[in-house]
Amino acid sequence: MPSSGAVQPREPGPMVSVSTALCRVLNQVEAVGSEFVSLQESLGRIISSDVFAEAPFPPFRASTKDGYAVVAADGPGTYPVVGHVPAGHPADYVQTSGQATYITTGAPLPDGADAVVMVEDTIPEGDKVKINTTVSPGTDVRPIGSDLEAGALILERGRRLDAVELGMLATAGVSQVEVYRKPKITVLSTGDELCAPWDVPKYGQIRDSNHITLSRMAMAMGADSIGGTKIAPDNTVELQNELLSSLTDRDMLITSGGVSMGEHDLLPSLLQELGAELHTERVLMKPGKPFTFATVDRQDNSRVTLIFSLPGNPASALVTFLLFVVPALRKMQGRKPVRLPRIGVTIIEDLRRDPLRPEFHRVALTWDQGLHDGAGGYCAKSTGLQKSSRLMSMLDADALVEIPPGNGAVSKGSVLQAVDLRRL
Amino acid sequence: MPSSGAVQPREPGPMVSVSTALCRVLNQVEAVGSEFVSLQESLGRIISSDVFAEAPFPPFRASTKDGYAVVAADGPGTYPVVGHVPAGHPADYVQTSGQATYITTGAPLPDGADAVVMVEDTIPEGDKVKINTTVSPGTDVRPIGSDLEAGALILERGRRLDAVELGMLATAGVSQVEVYRKPKITVLSTGDELCAPWDVPKYGQIRDSNHITLSRMAMAMGADSIGGTKIAPDNTVELQNELLSSLTDRDMLITSGGVSMGEHDLLPSLLQELGAELHTERVLMKPGKPFTFATVDRQDNSRVTLIFSLPGNPASALVTFLLFVVPALRKMQGRKPVRLPRIGVTIIEDLRRDPLRPEFHRVALTWDQGLHDGAGGYCAKSTGLQKSSRLMSMLDADALVEIPPGNGAVSKGSVLQAVDLRRL
Repeated sequence: MPSSGAVQPREPGPMVSVSTALCRVLNQVEAVGSEFVSLQESLGRIISSDVFAEAPFPPFRASTKDGYAVVAADGPGTYPVVGHVPAGHPADYVQTSGQATYITTGAPLPDGADAVVMVEDTIPEGDKVKINTTVSPGTDVRPIGSDLEAGALILERGRRLDAVELGMLATAGVSQVEVYRKPKITVLSTGDELCAPWDVPKYGQIRDSNHITLSRMAMAMGADSIGGTKIAPDNTVELQNELLSSLTDRDMLITSGGVSMGEHDLLPSLLQELGAELHTERVLMKPGKPFTFATVDRQDNSRVTLIFSLPGNPASALVTFLLFVVPALRKMQGRKPVRLPRIGVTIIEDLRRDPLRPEFHRVALTWDQGLHDGAGGYCAKSTGLQKSSRLMSMLDADALVEIPPGNGAVSKGSVLQAVDLRRL
Repeated sequence: MPSSGAVQPREPGPMVSVSTALCRVLNQVEAVGSEFVSLQESLGRIISSDVFAEAPFPPFRASTKDGYAVVAADGPGTYPVVGHVPAGHPADYVQTSGQATYITTGAPLPDGADAVVMVEDTIPEGDKVKINTTVSPGTDVRPIGSDLEAGALILERGRRLDAVELGMLATAGVSQVEVYRKPKITVLSTGDELCAPWDVPKYGQIRDSNHITLSRMAMAMGADSIGGTKIAPDNTVELQNELLSSLTDRDMLITSGGVSMGEHDLLPSLLQELGAELHTERVLMKPGKPFTFATVDRQDNSRVTLIFSLPGNPASALVTFLLFVVPALRKMQGRKPVRLPRIGVTIIEDLRRDPLRPEFHRVALTWDQGLHDGAGGYCAKSTGLQKSSRLMSMLDADALVEIPPGNGAVSKGSVLQAVDLRRL
């Protein structure tokens, strides 16, 4: 039996609802500061200030067709071709009535011209061209600023920079982008029963999966995970030291796992010893009841470190991560909306209720256009046994269906609300 | 006017439907080979062989509660506590009838014990414990292999390794993972009118956004984009050299943009000069009609290089990328399913039809639980002007609604099919 130091387990605080727990979390979250990164390095970051177009786009009157730039009022007829204007090679002359300029898509209209006749409506005749159709001023011309006016809002702060956003910044010539700094987090798996994924477990041990799952999920959401696979033993002194070293400059500490005196009994006591304020210690939910949330002042007093102490069983750790840590990471990076979207889904089998706790049942979604008289809808298929130890219940989980507590089961065919996990 | 070399534009091939074009693309796609990467480096890669559990999980009979391991048949009573078994510290004795062992969640049951009585149903009495309840054999015990049997399929080939998949591999002790090699691609923007995002456009120029958008989207889908921002001039010789150097060892070449003689006239000719086979040159769709797909044998004859020649306007380039290149990248990496999912969405405004071509209208989706008599559904809101030059029409685009061709408009409130872009 390992030594367990002086700190003793204590009675956990009162049980609160999921929405209360989430409010308590979000109340403690402040946005991190910002920094500049190059456009090339900004993929996946969250932009921290609004970006406006400095110049109109297109910045010149651009042809939308291959054809001939003309003065629309000239009408059909045969005209001398006074120049060729391919894209990128503007005319160095002013076109007048009675002239035509060969022009390609994207090229600037010569001054004096006011429309384009597409090549299909023309016949070349040596150094002249026969125009077969009548066009109006502006035909096949993109006016200056017609895609984007000067001063227009291009990207609003709080938006994640995906590929299209980078294209918008490229168009606007923004090569240095102001983004929220990456939250610094440490993920810590606790428990003497854990070994690293690359070790062979001794009898009584299992390999830790929480560190890699939680850290990679946080990283995919923009966090900077500091420290490699960390497993803290249940020895109080070592655990306390591990916690202390994680708290010096982190925005967030995420622990998972039981401690030797019973899951989530010792860790809250330890956190209190370290001066942390415990905001929530138990949540009325299944799985994830022992979810604990605390804050502690940083040593430099600049801000608080958020501490999420998740249950050790992988499914419980992940469900509480998704419901509480994900919105915190979003708010910390100024991302909008903060909460994950909810959708309605149709369950395709009876789902048993828990008498007291709302259950977050993991489901895979497929669209069935035949549902609801052809309006279509999502079929939600359970990922199988929902035991909190069974990480496999999170594989293929597109959503968390919230089963309201009660007696019996919710019948198949019912529409239930679900947290959509498909775009964290 | 720039020199244009010897290659002349030519008549484009016949127009084909979107589904024909996609079939022609997919017919040419072969999966790339595989390689081993460390578990830590495997996030986002596509696994290329099935992974099975070598050992059962849990590998021992694990307590699911903090409490006392007992022989169930003993029933209520007061028993000597013969040991403490915290998680990770298995008993070194065999328990017999009439004994109890203090045990924590996740710890291995001592041999001889067959159930756990949770601590709430016990009263400690010095070195004994009073058991207040009757349990059955197996109560609060997770049997060996109950989460995962030895030999069970954990991950099927073709699955992307997201955070949960990494956790599964960690649990199974897979520290080297066989994944599909990253497809090597080059993205090439062509056109004399383009300058780099960090340059100030001269009169008649615009900044290139296609390179960063298309390369980052391809990278997010697992490709390795070789070469930085590349803009090829419309000069035939230089463009041909650029193409040749891209074709030596690439799995895919993606070009976008017009050439001086009219969009998509010169490039197909150049590709034919290089020995490429043109499979599709025009597609009945809006935007993206001049989409061109070709293949060319590699210099080492090992496999073909796929060549996607996309229209230059950003929205056209992106829509054709999403509909044709994305499924190709998925198939090349063995990913299942190959095609993007389709869903039904309710349009919230009238959408005009094109008389001849199906239109892929970009929309943002929000869930409205009140739709369809409470069954709920997605409201699809247009991203605004759908001009092919307007990249902004791709911002917030969660889906591409396919508007069937015809006269007039599709009325608001109609349910249309849409390609779901939210999980590429």
